[in-house]
Amino acid sequence: MKRIAVIGLGLIGGSLARAVRQAAQADVIVGYDPDPEQGRRAIELGVVDIAAASAAEAAAGAELIVLSVPVLHTAEALRSVRGALGADTIVTDVGSTKSSVLADVLSVFGELPPRFVAGHPIAGTEKSGVAASKGELFRGRRVVLTPHPNQDPSALQTVRALWESVGSRVVEMDAARHDAIFAATSHLPHVLAYAFVDLLARMDTADEIFPNAGGGFRDFTRIASSSPEMWHDIVRANHVQVSRLLEQQIGELQELLAMMKGGRWSDLRDRFERARAARERHLSQIE
Amino acid sequence: MKRIAVIGLGLIGGSLARAVRQAAQADVIVGYDPDPEQGRRAIELGVVDIAAASAAEAAAGAELIVLSVPVLHTAEALRSVRGALGADTIVTDVGSTKSSVLADVLSVFGELPPRFVAGHPIAGTEKSGVAASKGELFRGRRVVLTPHPNQDPSALQTVRALWESVGSRVVEMDAARHDAIFAATSHLPHVLAYAFVDLLARMDTADEIFPNAGGGFRDFTRIASSSPEMWHDIVRANHVQVSRLLEQQIGELQELLAMMKGGRWSDLRDRFERARAARERHLSQIE
Repeated sequence: MKRIAVIGLGLIGGSLARAVRQAAQADVIVGYDPDPEQGRRAIELGVVDIAAASAAEAAAGAELIVLSVPVLHTAEALRSVRGALGADTIVTDVGSTKSSVLADVLSVFGELPPRFVAGHPIAGTEKSGVAASKGELFRGRRVVLTPHPNQDPSALQTVRALWESVGSRVVEMDAARHDAIFAATSHLPHVLAYAFVDLLARMDTADEIFPNAGGGFRDFTRIASSSPEMWHDIVRANHVQVSRLLEQQIGELQELLAMMKGGRWSDLRDRFERARAARERHLSQIE
Repeated sequence: MKRIAVIGLGLIGGSLARAVRQAAQADVIVGYDPDPEQGRRAIELGVVDIAAASAAEAAAGAELIVLSVPVLHTAEALRSVRGALGADTIVTDVGSTKSSVLADVLSVFGELPPRFVAGHPIAGTEKSGVAASKGELFRGRRVVLTPHPNQDPSALQTVRALWESVGSRVVEMDAARHDAIFAATSHLPHVLAYAFVDLLARMDTADEIFPNAGGGFRDFTRIASSSPEMWHDIVRANHVQVSRLLEQQIGELQELLAMMKGGRWSDLRDRFERARAARERHLSQIE
Protein backbone atom coordinates (compact mmCIF):
# COMPACT_ATOMS: atom_id res chain seq x y z
CA MET A 1 0.00 0.00 0.00
CA LYS A 2 1.10 3.55 -0.58
CA ARG A 3 -0.27 5.10 2.57
CA ILE A 4 -1.72 3.77 5.81
CA ALA A 5 -3.15 6.03 8.51
CA VAL A 6 -3.20 5.11 12.17
CA ILE A 7 -5.59 7.16 14.29
CA GLY A 8 -4.56 6.83 17.93
CA LEU A 9 -0.89 6.22 18.68
CA GLY A 10 -1.12 4.18 21.84
CA LEU A 11 0.29 0.74 22.54
CA ILE A 12 -1.78 -0.98 19.84
CA GLY A 13 -1.72 1.74 17.19
CA GLY A 14 2.00 2.32 17.68
CA SER A 15 2.77 -1.39 17.61
CA LEU A 16 0.76 -1.91 14.44
CA ALA A 17 2.56 1.02 12.77
CA ARG A 18 5.91 -0.51 13.72
CA ALA A 19 4.84 -3.97 12.54
CA VAL A 20 3.53 -2.67 9.21
CA ARG A 21 6.83 -0.91 8.62
CA GLN A 22 8.84 -4.03 9.52
CA ALA A 23 6.72 -6.05 7.12
CA ALA A 24 7.15 -3.38 4.43
CA GLN A 25 3.40 -3.19 3.90
CA ALA A 26 3.18 0.55 3.28
CA ASP A 27 5.30 3.25 1.68
CA VAL A 28 4.15 5.90 4.10
CA ILE A 29 2.68 5.51 7.57
CA VAL A 30 0.93 8.57 8.88
CA GLY A 31 -0.32 8.79 12.44
CA TYR A 32 -2.46 11.06 14.54
CA ASP A 33 -3.02 11.24 18.25
CA PRO A 34 -5.10 13.82 20.09
CA ASP A 35 -2.18 14.15 22.51
CA PRO A 36 0.53 16.00 20.53
CA GLU A 37 3.19 14.52 22.83
CA GLN A 38 2.32 11.01 21.61
CA GLY A 39 2.66 12.18 18.01
CA ARG A 40 6.02 13.74 18.75
CA ARG A 41 7.25 10.58 20.47
CA ALA A 42 6.00 8.48 17.54
CA ILE A 43 8.15 10.51 15.16
CA GLU A 44 11.17 10.42 17.48
CA LEU A 45 10.89 6.66 17.83
CA GLY A 46 10.44 6.16 14.09
CA VAL A 47 7.02 4.62 14.61
CA VAL A 48 5.36 6.76 11.92
CA ASP A 49 6.67 8.82 9.01
CA ILE A 50 4.30 11.71 9.54
CA ALA A 51 2.48 12.89 12.64
CA ALA A 52 -0.57 14.67 11.27
CA ALA A 53 -2.18 17.64 12.98
CA SER A 54 -5.66 16.14 12.79
CA ALA A 55 -7.36 12.81 12.14
CA ALA A 56 -8.75 14.20 8.86
CA GLU A 57 -5.28 15.22 7.71
CA ALA A 58 -3.91 11.78 8.60
CA ALA A 59 -6.74 10.05 6.74
CA ALA A 60 -6.48 12.12 3.57
CA GLY A 61 -5.15 9.97 0.75
CA ALA A 62 -4.74 6.82 2.86
CA GLU A 63 -5.80 3.51 1.33
CA LEU A 64 -6.30 2.01 4.77
CA ILE A 65 -7.23 3.77 8.00
CA VAL A 66 -6.82 1.99 11.33
CA LEU A 67 -8.75 3.39 14.28
CA SER A 68 -6.93 2.53 17.48
CA VAL A 69 -8.72 4.66 20.03
CA PRO A 70 -10.54 3.74 23.26
CA VAL A 71 -13.78 2.15 22.07
CA LEU A 72 -16.05 4.96 23.24
CA HIS A 73 -14.07 7.36 21.05
CA THR A 74 -14.87 5.35 17.93
CA ALA A 75 -17.82 7.49 16.74
CA GLU A 76 -15.82 10.68 17.19
CA ALA A 77 -12.88 9.20 15.25
CA LEU A 78 -15.22 8.06 12.47
CA ARG A 79 -16.73 11.53 12.19
CA SER A 80 -13.22 13.05 12.02
CA VAL A 81 -12.09 10.90 9.10
CA ARG A 82 -15.40 10.64 7.26
CA GLY A 83 -14.80 13.60 4.95
CA ALA A 84 -11.42 12.21 3.92
CA LEU A 85 -12.69 8.83 2.76
CA GLY A 86 -12.43 7.92 -0.91
CA ALA A 87 -14.65 5.36 -2.59
CA ASP A 88 -12.05 2.63 -2.06
CA THR A 89 -10.73 3.59 1.36
CA ILE A 90 -10.80 0.75 3.84
CA VAL A 91 -11.42 1.60 7.49
CA THR A 92 -10.75 -0.90 10.24
CA ASP A 93 -10.48 -0.76 14.01
CA VAL A 94 -8.81 -2.63 16.85
CA GLY A 95 -11.41 -2.20 19.60
CA SER A 96 -12.03 -4.82 22.28
CA THR A 97 -15.82 -4.64 21.83
CA LYS A 98 -17.35 -5.19 18.44
CA SER A 99 -21.12 -4.71 18.76
CA SER A 100 -20.64 -1.21 20.13
CA VAL A 101 -18.19 -0.34 17.35
CA LEU A 102 -20.58 -1.55 14.64
CA ALA A 103 -23.39 0.42 16.30
CA ASP A 104 -21.21 3.53 16.18
CA VAL A 105 -20.38 2.93 12.53
CA LEU A 106 -24.07 2.56 11.74
CA SER A 107 -24.95 5.73 13.62
CA VAL A 108 -22.22 7.82 11.96
CA PHE A 109 -22.76 6.54 8.40
CA GLY A 110 -26.45 5.65 8.53
CA GLU A 111 -25.44 2.22 7.19
CA LEU A 112 -22.64 -0.29 7.61
CA PRO A 113 -20.20 0.75 4.86
CA PRO A 114 -18.96 -2.29 2.90
CA ARG A 115 -15.36 -1.20 3.35
CA PHE A 116 -15.50 -0.89 7.14
CA VAL A 117 -13.95 -4.00 8.71
CA ALA A 118 -14.31 -4.52 12.47
CA GLY A 119 -11.31 -6.17 14.08
CA HIS A 120 -9.74 -7.01 17.43
CA PRO A 121 -6.14 -8.17 17.90
CA ILE A 122 -5.81 -10.35 21.01
CA ALA A 123 -2.58 -8.74 22.01
CA GLY A 124 -1.45 -6.07 24.38
CA THR A 125 0.16 -5.55 27.71
CA GLU A 126 -0.78 -3.57 30.79
CA LYS A 127 1.38 -0.74 29.45
CA SER A 128 -0.02 2.27 27.61
CA GLY A 129 1.30 4.80 25.14
CA VAL A 130 3.43 4.80 22.03
CA ALA A 131 6.64 4.44 24.05
CA ALA A 132 5.51 0.93 25.03
CA SER A 133 4.77 -0.12 21.44
CA LYS A 134 6.58 -3.10 19.93
CA GLY A 135 6.69 -4.30 16.34
CA GLU A 136 6.50 -7.93 17.46
CA LEU A 137 3.36 -7.49 19.55
CA PHE A 138 1.07 -9.30 17.12
CA ARG A 139 3.37 -12.14 16.11
CA GLY A 140 1.71 -15.48 16.75
CA ARG A 141 -1.33 -13.76 18.26
CA ARG A 142 -4.93 -14.18 17.25
CA VAL A 143 -6.88 -11.40 15.53
CA VAL A 144 -10.66 -11.62 15.45
CA LEU A 145 -12.51 -9.99 12.54
CA THR A 146 -16.27 -9.66 12.84
CA PRO A 147 -17.68 -9.22 9.32
CA HIS A 148 -21.04 -7.45 9.06
CA PRO A 149 -23.93 -8.22 6.68
CA ASN A 150 -22.90 -5.49 4.25
CA GLN A 151 -19.24 -6.48 4.18
CA ASP A 152 -17.16 -6.13 1.01
CA PRO A 153 -15.18 -9.37 0.76
CA SER A 154 -12.13 -7.72 -0.79
CA ALA A 155 -11.88 -5.18 2.06
CA LEU A 156 -12.14 -8.05 4.53
CA GLN A 157 -9.41 -9.89 2.64
CA THR A 158 -7.13 -6.83 2.64
CA VAL A 159 -7.44 -6.41 6.39
CA ARG A 160 -6.91 -10.13 6.93
CA ALA A 161 -3.77 -10.04 4.77
CA LEU A 162 -2.43 -7.04 6.67
CA TRP A 163 -2.72 -8.86 10.01
CA GLU A 164 -1.23 -12.01 8.55
CA SER A 165 1.70 -9.99 7.21
CA VAL A 166 2.58 -8.98 10.78
CA GLY A 167 2.45 -12.58 11.96
CA SER A 168 -1.10 -12.87 13.34
CA ARG A 169 -3.58 -15.69 12.91
CA VAL A 170 -6.93 -14.31 11.78
CA VAL A 171 -10.28 -15.82 12.75
CA GLU A 172 -13.75 -14.57 11.94
CA MET A 173 -16.80 -14.60 14.15
CA ASP A 174 -20.05 -12.80 14.73
CA ALA A 175 -19.74 -9.55 16.72
CA ALA A 176 -22.21 -10.62 19.42
CA ARG A 177 -20.41 -13.90 19.93
CA HIS A 178 -17.11 -12.03 20.10
CA ASP A 179 -18.44 -9.77 22.81
CA ALA A 180 -19.79 -12.68 24.87
CA ILE A 181 -16.49 -14.53 24.67
CA PHE A 182 -14.30 -11.54 25.50
CA ALA A 183 -16.55 -10.47 28.34
CA ALA A 184 -15.51 -13.80 29.87
CA THR A 185 -11.82 -14.04 28.94
CA SER A 186 -10.85 -10.41 29.20
CA HIS A 187 -13.40 -7.86 30.40
CA LEU A 188 -14.54 -9.63 33.59
CA PRO A 189 -10.97 -10.48 34.73
CA HIS A 190 -10.00 -6.83 34.38
CA VAL A 191 -12.92 -5.83 36.62
CA LEU A 192 -11.97 -8.52 39.14
CA ALA A 193 -8.31 -7.52 39.17
CA TYR A 194 -9.10 -3.83 39.66
CA ALA A 195 -11.56 -4.70 42.44
CA PHE A 196 -9.03 -6.91 44.21
CA VAL A 197 -6.21 -4.35 44.15
CA ASP A 198 -8.64 -1.64 45.23
CA LEU A 199 -9.75 -3.75 48.21
CA LEU A 200 -6.16 -4.15 49.36
CA ALA A 201 -5.25 -0.54 48.70
CA ARG A 202 -8.07 0.61 50.97
CA MET A 203 -6.94 -1.51 53.90
CA ASP A 204 -5.20 0.22 56.81
CA THR A 205 -2.36 -2.24 56.43
CA ALA A 206 -1.81 -1.60 52.71
CA ASP A 207 1.75 -0.46 53.31
CA GLU A 208 2.56 -3.80 54.94
CA ILE A 209 0.63 -5.85 52.42
CA PHE A 210 2.22 -4.89 49.12
CA PRO A 211 5.86 -5.49 50.12
CA ASN A 212 4.88 -9.05 51.05
CA ALA A 213 3.39 -9.86 47.68
CA GLY A 214 5.01 -12.59 45.61
CA GLY A 215 4.96 -13.74 42.04
CA GLY A 216 1.39 -15.05 42.20
CA PHE A 217 0.12 -11.65 43.28
CA ARG A 218 2.18 -9.87 40.64
CA ASP A 219 0.71 -11.93 37.81
CA PHE A 220 -2.84 -11.98 39.18
CA THR A 221 -2.86 -8.18 39.43
CA ARG A 222 -0.85 -7.30 36.33
CA ILE A 223 -3.94 -6.34 34.35
CA ALA A 224 -4.93 -3.89 37.12
CA SER A 225 -2.09 -1.69 35.81
CA SER A 226 -3.95 -1.32 32.50
CA SER A 227 -5.34 2.02 31.32
CA PRO A 228 -8.44 2.89 33.41
CA GLU A 229 -9.82 5.01 30.56
CA MET A 230 -9.54 2.22 28.03
CA TRP A 231 -11.11 -0.32 30.39
CA HIS A 232 -13.85 2.02 31.49
CA ASP A 233 -14.78 2.32 27.81
CA ILE A 234 -14.68 -1.44 27.23
CA VAL A 235 -16.73 -2.36 30.28
CA ARG A 236 -19.23 0.37 29.52
CA ALA A 237 -19.50 -0.60 25.85
CA ASN A 238 -20.06 -4.26 26.77
CA HIS A 239 -21.80 -3.73 30.10
CA VAL A 240 -24.73 -6.05 29.48
CA GLN A 241 -22.45 -9.04 29.02
CA VAL A 242 -19.95 -8.00 31.68
CA SER A 243 -22.53 -7.30 34.36
CA ARG A 244 -24.27 -10.61 33.75
CA LEU A 245 -20.99 -12.47 34.20
CA LEU A 246 -20.05 -10.38 37.22
CA GLU A 247 -23.37 -11.31 38.80
CA GLN A 248 -22.63 -14.99 38.20
CA GLN A 249 -19.13 -14.58 39.62
CA ILE A 250 -20.49 -12.95 42.76
CA GLY A 251 -22.88 -15.90 43.07
CA GLU A 252 -20.00 -18.37 42.82
CA LEU A 253 -17.96 -16.46 45.40
CA GLN A 254 -20.95 -16.49 47.75
CA GLU A 255 -21.11 -20.27 47.34
CA LEU A 256 -17.41 -20.58 48.19
CA LEU A 257 -17.89 -18.32 51.21
CA ALA A 258 -20.77 -20.49 52.40
CA MET A 259 -18.55 -23.56 52.05
CA MET A 260 -15.88 -21.93 54.19
CA LYS A 261 -18.34 -20.77 56.83
CA GLY A 262 -20.10 -24.14 56.85
CA GLY A 263 -16.87 -26.13 57.00
CA ARG A 264 -17.66 -27.88 53.71
CA TRP A 265 -13.99 -28.28 52.90
CA SER A 266 -14.20 -31.15 50.45
CA ASP A 267 -16.70 -29.14 48.39
CA LEU A 268 -14.22 -26.29 48.33
CA ARG A 269 -11.40 -28.58 47.27
CA ASP A 270 -13.61 -29.99 44.50
CA ARG A 271 -14.08 -26.48 43.10
CA PHE A 272 -10.36 -25.82 43.22
CA GLU A 273 -9.72 -29.17 41.53
CA ARG A 274 -12.32 -28.57 38.83
CA ALA A 275 -10.86 -25.15 38.05
CA ARG A 276 -7.31 -26.44 37.90
CA ALA A 277 -8.36 -29.33 35.64
CA ALA A 278 -10.16 -26.95 33.27
CA ARG A 279 -7.18 -24.62 33.05
CA GLU A 280 -4.75 -27.50 32.50
CA ARG A 281 -7.02 -29.05 29.86
CA HIS A 282 -7.03 -25.80 27.88
CA LEU A 283 -3.49 -24.78 28.73
CA SER A 284 -1.93 -25.54 25.38
CA GLN A 285 -4.37 -23.08 23.82
CA ILE A 286 -3.57 -20.20 26.14
CA GLU A 287 0.17 -20.49 26.78
CA MET B 1 25.85 -29.06 58.63
CA LYS B 2 26.41 -32.78 58.41
CA ARG B 3 22.86 -33.80 57.63
CA ILE B 4 19.66 -32.03 56.68
CA ALA B 5 16.34 -33.81 56.30
CA VAL B 6 13.58 -32.59 54.02
CA ILE B 7 10.15 -34.06 54.74
CA GLY B 8 7.99 -33.59 51.67
CA LEU B 9 9.71 -33.50 48.28
CA GLY B 10 7.42 -31.20 46.37
CA LEU B 11 8.25 -27.98 44.59
CA ILE B 12 9.40 -26.18 47.75
CA GLY B 13 11.07 -29.09 49.52
CA GLY B 14 12.83 -30.19 46.34
CA SER B 15 13.93 -26.65 45.50
CA LEU B 16 15.30 -26.09 49.01
CA ALA B 17 17.22 -29.39 48.83
CA ARG B 18 18.74 -28.32 45.51
CA ALA B 19 19.55 -24.84 46.83
CA VAL B 20 21.18 -26.21 50.00
CA ARG B 21 23.36 -28.48 47.91
CA GLN B 22 24.34 -25.65 45.55
CA ALA B 23 25.27 -23.52 48.55
CA ALA B 24 27.20 -26.45 50.05
CA GLN B 25 25.32 -26.09 53.33
CA ALA B 26 25.09 -29.82 54.16
CA ASP B 27 27.21 -32.92 53.68
CA VAL B 28 24.18 -35.15 53.27
CA ILE B 29 20.64 -34.27 52.27
CA VAL B 30 18.08 -36.91 53.05
CA GLY B 31 14.52 -36.64 51.84
CA TYR B 32 11.23 -38.35 52.41
CA ASP B 33 7.96 -38.14 50.56
CA PRO B 34 4.85 -40.22 51.25
CA ASP B 35 4.66 -40.79 47.49
CA PRO B 36 7.55 -43.21 46.71
CA GLU B 37 7.59 -41.98 43.10
CA GLN B 38 8.56 -38.47 44.29
CA GLY B 39 11.41 -39.98 46.32
CA ARG B 40 12.61 -41.98 43.32
CA ARG B 41 12.50 -38.91 41.08
CA ALA B 42 14.36 -36.88 43.71
CA ILE B 43 17.22 -39.42 43.65
CA GLU B 44 17.22 -39.60 39.84
CA LEU B 45 17.36 -35.80 39.59
CA GLY B 46 20.12 -35.56 42.19
CA VAL B 47 17.89 -33.47 44.46
CA VAL B 48 18.66 -35.55 47.57
CA ASP B 49 21.40 -38.03 48.48
CA ILE B 50 19.09 -40.47 50.22
CA ALA B 51 15.37 -41.09 49.83
CA ALA B 52 14.35 -42.49 53.18
CA ALA B 53 11.56 -45.03 53.61
CA SER B 54 9.86 -43.01 56.34
CA ALA B 55 9.87 -39.55 57.85
CA ALA B 56 11.38 -40.97 61.03
CA GLU B 57 14.22 -42.59 59.10
CA ALA B 58 14.88 -39.34 57.24
CA ALA B 59 14.91 -37.37 60.48
CA ALA B 60 17.24 -39.71 62.38
CA GLY B 61 20.60 -38.02 62.92
CA ALA B 62 19.68 -34.81 61.08
CA GLU B 63 20.76 -31.51 62.62
CA LEU B 64 18.00 -29.68 60.80
CA ILE B 65 14.63 -30.99 59.66
CA VAL B 66 12.56 -29.02 57.15
CA LEU B 67 8.88 -29.87 56.96
CA SER B 68 7.59 -29.03 53.49
CA VAL B 69 4.18 -30.64 53.48
CA PRO B 70 0.70 -29.19 52.86
CA VAL B 71 -0.05 -27.24 56.04
CA LEU B 72 -2.79 -29.56 57.30
CA HIS B 73 -0.25 -32.40 57.25
CA THR B 74 2.03 -30.55 59.66
CA ALA B 75 0.83 -32.29 62.84
CA GLU B 76 1.18 -35.71 61.22
CA ALA B 77 4.71 -34.88 60.02
CA LEU B 78 5.67 -33.62 63.47
CA ARG B 79 4.42 -36.84 65.07
CA SER B 80 6.41 -38.88 62.54
CA VAL B 81 9.72 -37.18 63.29
CA ARG B 82 9.20 -36.57 67.00
CA GLY B 83 10.91 -39.75 68.17
CA ALA B 84 13.98 -39.01 66.06
CA LEU B 85 14.65 -35.56 67.51
CA GLY B 86 17.84 -35.02 69.51
CA ALA B 87 18.24 -32.27 72.10
CA ASP B 88 19.81 -29.94 69.56
CA THR B 89 17.76 -30.83 66.48
CA ILE B 90 16.23 -27.81 64.81
CA VAL B 91 12.87 -28.25 63.10
CA THR B 92 11.51 -25.66 60.71
CA ASP B 93 8.69 -25.54 58.18
CA VAL B 94 7.77 -23.71 54.99
CA GLY B 95 3.99 -23.52 55.38
CA SER B 96 1.93 -20.62 54.02
CA THR B 97 -0.04 -20.26 57.27
CA LYS B 98 1.79 -19.75 60.53
CA SER B 99 -0.81 -19.61 63.33
CA SER B 100 -2.13 -23.03 62.35
CA VAL B 101 1.37 -24.49 62.20
CA LEU B 102 2.24 -23.14 65.65
CA ALA B 103 -1.05 -24.51 66.99
CA ASP B 104 -0.14 -27.92 65.56
CA VAL B 105 3.31 -27.76 67.12
CA LEU B 106 1.77 -26.90 70.46
CA SER B 107 -0.72 -29.72 70.23
CA VAL B 108 1.87 -32.35 69.27
CA PHE B 109 4.56 -31.31 71.79
CA GLY B 110 2.37 -29.84 74.55
CA GLU B 111 4.56 -26.74 74.34
CA LEU B 112 6.31 -24.65 71.70
CA PRO B 113 9.77 -26.28 71.56
CA PRO B 114 12.52 -23.62 71.58
CA ARG B 115 14.17 -25.22 68.55
CA PHE B 116 11.07 -25.18 66.34
CA VAL B 117 11.27 -22.24 63.94
CA ALA B 118 8.19 -21.38 61.88
CA GLY B 119 8.99 -20.09 58.41
CA HIS B 120 7.45 -19.23 55.05
CA PRO B 121 9.42 -18.58 51.86
CA ILE B 122 7.53 -16.23 49.53
CA ALA B 123 8.44 -18.24 46.49
CA GLY B 124 6.85 -20.85 44.34
CA THR B 125 5.13 -21.35 41.06
CA GLU B 126 1.85 -22.91 40.06
CA LYS B 127 3.75 -26.14 39.38
CA SER B 128 3.84 -29.04 41.82
CA GLY B 129 6.18 -31.93 42.48
CA VAL B 130 9.91 -32.49 42.72
CA ALA B 131 10.29 -32.47 38.92
CA ALA B 132 9.40 -28.76 38.96
CA SER B 133 11.94 -27.90 41.67
CA LYS B 134 14.68 -25.36 40.99
CA GLY B 135 17.74 -24.51 43.02
CA GLU B 136 17.34 -20.81 42.22
CA LEU B 137 13.75 -20.58 43.43
CA PHE B 138 14.55 -18.65 46.60
CA ARG B 139 17.18 -16.28 45.22
CA GLY B 140 16.20 -12.69 45.89
CA ARG B 141 12.90 -13.78 47.46
CA ARG B 142 11.61 -12.90 50.88
CA VAL B 143 11.36 -15.47 53.67
CA VAL B 144 9.17 -14.69 56.67
CA LEU B 145 10.08 -16.25 60.01
CA THR B 146 7.52 -15.98 62.82
CA PRO B 147 9.37 -16.47 66.11
CA HIS B 148 7.27 -17.72 69.03
CA PRO B 149 7.51 -16.71 72.71
CA ASN B 150 9.60 -19.75 73.61
CA GLN B 151 12.03 -19.37 70.70
CA ASP B 152 15.70 -20.30 71.06
CA PRO B 153 17.60 -17.41 69.40
CA SER B 154 20.38 -19.64 68.09
CA ALA B 155 17.90 -21.96 66.32
CA LEU B 156 16.26 -18.88 64.80
CA GLN B 157 19.68 -17.64 63.71
CA THR B 158 20.57 -20.99 62.13
CA VAL B 159 17.37 -21.06 60.08
CA ARG B 160 17.86 -17.44 59.07
CA ALA B 161 21.43 -18.19 57.97
CA LEU B 162 20.27 -21.19 55.94
CA TRP B 163 17.78 -19.08 53.97
CA GLU B 164 20.32 -16.32 53.49
CA SER B 165 22.81 -18.88 52.16
CA VAL B 166 20.37 -19.70 49.34
CA GLY B 167 19.94 -16.03 48.47
CA SER B 168 16.77 -15.10 50.38
CA ARG B 169 16.07 -11.97 52.39
CA VAL B 170 14.72 -12.92 55.81
CA VAL B 171 12.19 -10.84 57.73
CA GLU B 172 10.53 -11.60 61.04
CA MET B 173 6.97 -10.92 62.06
CA ASP B 174 4.29 -12.14 64.39
CA ALA B 175 2.39 -15.23 63.15
CA ALA B 176 -1.05 -13.58 63.33
CA ARG B 177 0.17 -10.58 61.37
CA HIS B 178 1.74 -12.90 58.82
CA ASP B 179 -1.57 -14.71 58.35
CA ALA B 180 -3.52 -11.48 57.93
CA ILE B 181 -1.09 -10.17 55.33
CA PHE B 182 -0.88 -13.39 53.32
CA ALA B 183 -4.64 -13.88 53.41
CA ALA B 184 -4.69 -10.63 51.40
CA THR B 185 -1.71 -11.04 49.08
CA SER B 186 -1.89 -14.75 48.42
CA HIS B 187 -4.77 -16.78 49.86
CA LEU B 188 -7.65 -14.60 48.65
CA PRO B 189 -6.27 -14.23 45.10
CA HIS B 190 -6.00 -18.00 44.82
CA VAL B 191 -9.66 -18.37 45.80
CA LEU B 192 -10.62 -15.65 43.30
CA ALA B 193 -8.61 -17.22 40.49
CA TYR B 194 -10.05 -20.69 41.09
CA ALA B 195 -13.57 -19.24 41.23
CA PHE B 196 -13.08 -17.32 38.00
CA VAL B 197 -11.74 -20.28 36.02
CA ASP B 198 -14.46 -22.50 37.46
CA LEU B 199 -17.13 -20.03 36.33
CA LEU B 200 -15.80 -20.10 32.77
CA ALA B 201 -15.29 -23.85 32.74
CA ARG B 202 -18.95 -24.38 33.65
CA MET B 203 -20.24 -22.25 30.79
CA ASP B 204 -21.72 -24.01 27.77
CA THR B 205 -19.34 -22.06 25.59
CA ALA B 206 -16.19 -23.07 27.52
CA ASP B 207 -14.68 -24.70 24.44
CA GLU B 208 -14.98 -21.43 22.55
CA ILE B 209 -13.85 -19.29 25.44
CA PHE B 210 -10.45 -20.71 26.31
CA PRO B 211 -8.94 -20.61 22.79
CA ASN B 212 -9.71 -16.88 22.72
CA ALA B 213 -7.84 -16.10 25.90
CA GLY B 214 -4.84 -13.82 25.70
CA GLY B 215 -1.88 -12.92 27.86
CA GLY B 216 -3.95 -11.09 30.46
CA PHE B 217 -6.10 -14.17 31.03
CA ARG B 218 -3.06 -16.42 31.20
CA ASP B 219 -1.41 -14.39 33.94
CA PHE B 220 -4.61 -13.67 35.87
CA THR B 221 -5.43 -17.39 36.03
CA ARG B 222 -1.92 -18.81 36.43
CA ILE B 223 -2.39 -19.43 40.16
CA ALA B 224 -5.53 -21.48 39.39
CA SER B 225 -3.15 -24.17 38.13
CA SER B 226 -1.73 -24.50 41.66
CA SER B 227 -2.18 -27.68 43.72
CA PRO B 228 -5.80 -27.89 44.92
CA GLU B 229 -4.76 -29.99 47.92
CA MET B 230 -2.17 -27.49 49.05
CA TRP B 231 -4.55 -24.55 48.64
CA HIS B 232 -7.45 -26.35 50.27
CA ASP B 233 -5.17 -26.78 53.29
CA ILE B 234 -4.05 -23.15 53.30
CA VAL B 235 -7.55 -21.69 52.96
CA ARG B 236 -8.90 -24.05 55.59
CA ALA B 237 -6.02 -23.34 57.99
CA ASN B 238 -6.50 -19.57 57.60
CA HIS B 239 -10.24 -19.55 56.93
CA VAL B 240 -11.15 -16.85 59.45
CA GLN B 241 -8.94 -14.30 57.73
CA VAL B 242 -9.69 -15.51 54.20
CA SER B 243 -13.45 -15.60 54.61
CA ARG B 244 -13.50 -12.10 56.11
CA LEU B 245 -11.58 -10.76 53.14
CA LEU B 246 -13.71 -12.72 50.68
CA GLU B 247 -16.80 -11.17 52.23
CA GLN B 248 -15.31 -7.70 51.74
CA GLN B 249 -14.37 -8.55 48.17
CA ILE B 250 -17.91 -9.70 47.40
CA GLY B 251 -19.12 -6.40 48.84
CA GLU B 252 -16.81 -4.44 46.57
CA LEU B 253 -17.90 -6.44 43.52
CA GLN B 254 -21.53 -5.77 44.40
CA GLU B 255 -20.73 -2.05 44.49
CA LEU B 256 -19.13 -2.25 41.04
CA LEU B 257 -22.11 -4.19 39.72
CA ALA B 258 -24.44 -1.51 41.08
CA MET B 259 -22.36 1.15 39.32
CA MET B 260 -22.69 -0.73 36.03
CA LYS B 261 -26.41 -1.28 36.42
CA GLY B 262 -26.95 2.31 37.53
CA GLY B 263 -24.84 3.77 34.73
CA ARG B 264 -22.47 5.37 37.25
CA TRP B 265 -19.54 5.15 34.86
CA SER B 266 -17.32 7.83 36.30
CA ASP B 267 -17.52 6.08 39.70
CA LEU B 268 -16.42 2.87 38.00
CA ARG B 269 -13.52 4.61 36.28
CA ASP B 270 -12.48 6.15 39.62
CA ARG B 271 -12.21 2.66 41.13
CA PHE B 272 -10.15 1.43 38.19
CA GLU B 273 -7.94 4.50 38.49
CA ARG B 274 -7.49 4.11 42.24
CA ALA B 275 -6.52 0.46 41.83
CA ARG B 276 -4.08 1.17 39.06
CA ALA B 277 -2.49 4.01 41.05
CA ALA B 278 -2.08 1.75 44.09
CA ARG B 279 -0.48 -1.01 42.10
CA GLU B 280 1.85 1.39 40.31
CA ARG B 281 2.80 3.05 43.61
CA HIS B 282 3.84 -0.27 45.09
CA LEU B 283 5.15 -1.78 41.86
CA SER B 284 8.84 -1.53 42.67
CA GLN B 285 8.20 -3.69 45.72
CA ILE B 286 6.40 -6.47 43.87
CA GLU B 287 8.19 -6.72 40.54
